[in-house]
Amino acid sequence: MNVLIVYAHPEPTSFNAALVARAKAALRAAGHTVTVSDLYADRFDPEAGRHDFSTIADPDRFHYQSEQVLAARQEAFVPEIAREQARVAAADLLVLQFPLWWGGPPAILKGWFERVLAYGFAYVDGRRFDTGVFKGRRALLSVTTGGTTARFGPHGVYGEIEKVLWQTQRLTLQYMGYSVEEPFVAYGAPRVGDEGRAAYLDEFARRVVEAAAKPVDRRTDEALRESVPADAWAQTR
Amino acid sequence: MNVLIVYAHPEPTSFNAALVARAKAALRAAGHTVTVSDLYADRFDPEAGRHDFSTIADPDRFHYQSEQVLAARQEAFVPEIAREQARVAAADLLVLQFPLWWGGPPAILKGWFERVLAYGFAYVDGRRFDTGVFKGRRALLSVTTGGTTARFGPHGVYGEIEKVLWQTQRLTLQYMGYSVEEPFVAYGAPRVGDEGRAAYLDEFARRVVEAAAKPVDRRTDEALRESVPADAWAQTR
Repeated sequence: MNVLIVYAHPEPTSFNAALVARAKAALRAAGHTVTVSDLYADRFDPEAGRHDFSTIADPDRFHYQSEQVLAARQEAFVPEIAREQARVAAADLLVLQFPLWWGGPPAILKGWFERVLAYGFAYVDGRRFDTGVFKGRRALLSVTTGGTTARFGPHGVYGEIEKVLWQTQRLTLQYMGYSVEEPFVAYGAPRVGDEGRAAYLDEFARRVVEAAAKPVDRRTDEALRESVPADAWAQTR
Repeated sequence: MNVLIVYAHPEPTSFNAALVARAKAALRAAGHTVTVSDLYADRFDPEAGRHDFSTIADPDRFHYQSEQVLAARQEAFVPEIAREQARVAAADLLVLQFPLWWGGPPAILKGWFERVLAYGFAYVDGRRFDTGVFKGRRALLSVTTGGTTARFGPHGVYGEIEKVLWQTQRLTLQYMGYSVEEPFVAYGAPRVGDEGRAAYLDEFARRVVEAAAKPVDRRTDEALRESVPADAWAQTR
């Protein structure tokens, strides 16, 4: 299996970094191919804009989806985006590793969603959820949080974790067609001590290897590209 | 009333821009003071990092909250962040205007949350939700989406709007102590025609003026700064 880990934490000695290192080692030991997109180390640019493309669909009015679908057709994404799209297209299993900041992914990862998962590449009208472009592939969220399980429980102040992760699980990954695994959540990560964190690392290694062992139905890049309807551009206006 | 509108859309002729212009005019006509933070026009940097601060709490390991609370004490935020914090501190009513992208705020606004709403400025341990630093002030989310009301209904594929906006409403604004108004949502904004959009503009003008007319309990910047406990820095380790 090809596994892509998209990782968003600025500190190389962080627990997030340790989770990535452990997952990578466990997956490789199980015979899988692993690529890591380290967004902070790569200085990934989170800001959507005309600098995403070498083409211009409309010079007078910037409509992001219209620019994206034209670039998808003409293979006119800038190298940073094209590289990430090639990684996503090649991945059977997509793992997102990040700390919950203000209840969601860091801006650098949100910007990766916006710029890389472009209209015409990751979704088009009529190809969402059960008919999504990435239908048949798997995705796994792995998040760390200072919050305890009680705070994310039914009566917790933060709300249930399913609700907290809804934007990413439902409106991003499932939207694209991915079969989404139960999220891996390291609750109270700064408070559980070295032993608690060691247990989290073991559990995460087990979870990623388990996810990578499940069957996928992987489509080719060509099929993805052909699936963009001819009038997709017009539909986004 | 002092009103701060934080606005995140890259296109000046967008419907989001029209909503901001209309709200600004309506609020000024009602006698309020309005400031707009136009994140794309200002080229706001969404990426959290050491470049946020002129101080360094720990040169060996970058722990964002530790760096933030030190900068909050020593007033060592870079000018871009200090300016936005001053605007937030001065605002009785905070309005966030953005298009729903992947179910949430654009990365540029998520980065504004991370960098501007710093530990030691916007929240500290023991001062969250009902005891939040901004308790007594008001906030209003205004979002546009291509999705129709049916898609955000109880059986809609996107889930109920309360769940979609949970991260921003609950885990950001209420977390800081804000009293959060019912969100203003322009459903199907690209599909409702000029008449539909004109109705949305009228409704939004009414909503912001209504929100600005409600009483607030505004604390001073000095009180905010004094409220940071002496051991806050240690607590974040």
